[in-house]
Amino acid sequence: MISQNSLYLVPVPIGEKGETGTAIRSVISACPFFITEEIRTARRFIRSIDKEKNIDLCTFAEFNEHNCNKGTAEIEALFADFPVAVLMSEAGIPCVADPGWQVVRLAHKLNRRVIPLSGPSSVYMALMASGIQGQRFMFHGYIPVKREARLRYLRDMEQKIRTDMATQIFMETPYRNNALMEDLTNSCNPALMLSVSAGIESDLAFTATKSIGEWKKELPDLHKIPAVFVMGI
Amino acid sequence: MISQNSLYLVPVPIGEKGETGTAIRSVISACPFFITEEIRTARRFIRSIDKEKNIDLCTFAEFNEHNCNKGTAEIEALFADFPVAVLMSEAGIPCVADPGWQVVRLAHKLNRRVIPLSGPSSVYMALMASGIQGQRFMFHGYIPVKREARLRYLRDMEQKIRTDMATQIFMETPYRNNALMEDLTNSCNPALMLSVSAGIESDLAFTATKSIGEWKKELPDLHKIPAVFVMGI
Repeated sequence: MISQNSLYLVPVPIGEKGETGTAIRSVISACPFFITEEIRTARRFIRSIDKEKNIDLCTFAEFNEHNCNKGTAEIEALFADFPVAVLMSEAGIPCVADPGWQVVRLAHKLNRRVIPLSGPSSVYMALMASGIQGQRFMFHGYIPVKREARLRYLRDMEQKIRTDMATQIFMETPYRNNALMEDLTNSCNPALMLSVSAGIESDLAFTATKSIGEWKKELPDLHKIPAVFVMGI
Repeated sequence: MISQNSLYLVPVPIGEKGETGTAIRSVISACPFFITEEIRTARRFIRSIDKEKNIDLCTFAEFNEHNCNKGTAEIEALFADFPVAVLMSEAGIPCVADPGWQVVRLAHKLNRRVIPLSGPSSVYMALMASGIQGQRFMFHGYIPVKREARLRYLRDMEQKIRTDMATQIFMETPYRNNALMEDLTNSCNPALMLSVSAGIESDLAFTATKSIGEWKKELPDLHKIPAVFVMGI
């Protein structure tokens, strides 16, 4: 059932309403080696999928923004011991807006079969729900924090909407979402469309799409709510 | 269970190994109105999900690249009759690389709740499996067909890899995949990394990532196999 000499890329539900399909369940049940952003939450997710699995017999490697600069040497050594591995993000799909792609690069170098499984991504769920064109788009991840750099970045995205004819997708750390909405509505062209998807896969999930001029009249409260922003024409 | 005054965005499996979760199944079973790229395949998909559903009592509207220029007037009229609607693509998620986003825009205008459900997207599955960075990326959809425009387009993507530090993702009509591989290996910097994901969610699915110089030594046969290309450093 499970493919040997392989790396499975496993999406994790984003909110409490997320579900996990049978392909992912069987991989998680069978796999002894997990590369994760955070071991504690990965163990909890595996437990929720398979109550019978002896997690204490599994091997875990943490790979995240804090230790990825040390490279993938530890994981390369562990690959030698484990013909099957799972790569998981904290939530959503691995390798988008996280450093997991370096583990995938290593797997290709070692001639492992890389097997992506489908699941939720806040980025594509926000894009599909935005009502803004998805034929051409650019994803930026987290945009700069410092004021000058951020305003320059917003101007650059506005320009890309015109010159590349590409929808722009970006995020902010949730406790700075309200400040980002203020910057967007104060500095971007009021005719641009801005879509906000917040609380994806949770009971409070919503997507609202308005012109920036409309948003400026009444700002939403997004404080500490994970959100993805989609901007275009 | 199903939310009234809403538009559900429903992903469709890409290959024969794809599966559909319970949230999508219950929406499909309950919904009487489907907006689809092609009615015939949509009916087949609905039948595969719910053998009991009386599909002849359902209403279908086709919305695709051939008729989207006529606008969304027909769909706006049908929305008045149906408080719940499903928007589906031919395969994968709606609104990415298809005109479905115009239906979503209409739903926002009419103050419908837009509810994205998660499922497979060949674009993000190719990106996560590529081993090329996914912190910043640009999706281009289908790139130009004519030789001059195409070569210019490839040069422009190469430049975006450097200036935007963004991974580039693109597609081609499957019967032109081999010609695209020739153009890529003949005209792009051999040091760039190129990932090819073909046959996603099928038994023949594979992702291979090599430098363009490596690819040039042995071109894959991708003729008529749906594929997504990911290029970066």
